[in-house]
Amino acid sequence: MRYYYDYNEFLSDLKKLVAMIDWEFDTIVPIARGGLSMAHLMGEHYDIRDVYAINTIGYEDDKKLEHTKLFNIPDLSHRKRVLIVDDISDTGDTLVLVTQELGERYPGVEFRTATIYYKESSLFKPDWYVREAKEWIDFFWTVDLKG
Amino acid sequence: MRYYYDYNEFLSDLKKLVAMIDWEFDTIVPIARGGLSMAHLMGEHYDIRDVYAINTIGYEDDKKLEHTKLFNIPDLSHRKRVLIVDDISDTGDTLVLVTQELGERYPGVEFRTATIYYKESSLFKPDWYVREAKEWIDFFWTVDLKG
Repeated sequence: MRYYYDYNEFLSDLKKLVAMIDWEFDTIVPIARGGLSMAHLMGEHYDIRDVYAINTIGYEDDKKLEHTKLFNIPDLSHRKRVLIVDDISDTGDTLVLVTQELGERYPGVEFRTATIYYKESSLFKPDWYVREAKEWIDFFWTVDLKG
Repeated sequence: MRYYYDYNEFLSDLKKLVAMIDWEFDTIVPIARGGLSMAHLMGEHYDIRDVYAINTIGYEDDKKLEHTKLFNIPDLSHRKRVLIVDDISDTGDTLVLVTQELGERYPGVEFRTATIYYKESSLFKPDWYVREAKEWIDFFWTVDLKG
C-alpha cells in the first residue's frame, strides 16, 4: 500500500500545523532533505529568515553496523527557541539523534519538533504533527520530478 | 504587476531545468530560503543526499550601508562539483556573493549555478535558468501558506 501525498494536501496540512503550534520561536531547522519544503513555506509564513538546514548521513562502521550521523550543523549559539521540522517521524531515529545532539551542543537553546506525519511505532513523538502514517507515503517532492 | 507562480508551473519548470543541465554534480547547495523547495525536488530527482543549504543575511554597517553576508556555510572540502540553486537571479547580488565566497574558500571545487528566473538587469547570469522575470513574482511558497 502506497499513498500519494500531493502539494494541495501538504498545503492544507501545513495550515493545520501552524494553527496547532502554540509556541513562539526564532529559528527553523529543517532536517534535509525531508524537511526542506515545509521549512521554506513555514519560514515565509512566520517571516523567519533564520532557516538553517541540517543533514544526516547514514554510514557503516567496520563491523558493518549502520549508524547515522549529523552533518552541516548550523551555529545556533545565538538562537533562543528553535523549531526542528521534518516530513515524518518514521522509526524516529533521525529526530532522536538531532534533538539529542543539538540539545547537548546548545544547552541554552530551547528545542521543539514538528512533523507532518508520525508513525505510532516511532521512537520519537514530535511536539506537533498532523497525521498518523499507516502506510508508505509517496511525498510529492519525492515522485513528482523523479518520473 | 504581480505574477502568481504556482506549484504546477514550478514542477513544469523544474522538468525543463533538469533537462537543460548537461553537467554531472555531486552536491546541491540551495540558497535559503528561495532555493529550498527546488533543491528538495532536485535532490530527489538526481538521488543526491548531499543537499547543503547556505544562508545570506542582510545587515547595516555603522555608516548605515546595506551589506549581505554568508552564514551557515557548509563544509564542501570533500565535494567536487557543486550546483548552487536559487529561485531567482534578481539584482544578482546574492549569487555574486555566494559564488565568490565559496570559490575562494574551496578553490578545488567546481561550481555552477541554476535558477528558475533570471532578470535581464541582473549582475549575475546563472549557467542555467528557465524564465526571464519581467514583473514581480509571487512564488507559491511565499503566498500559499501566508494567507
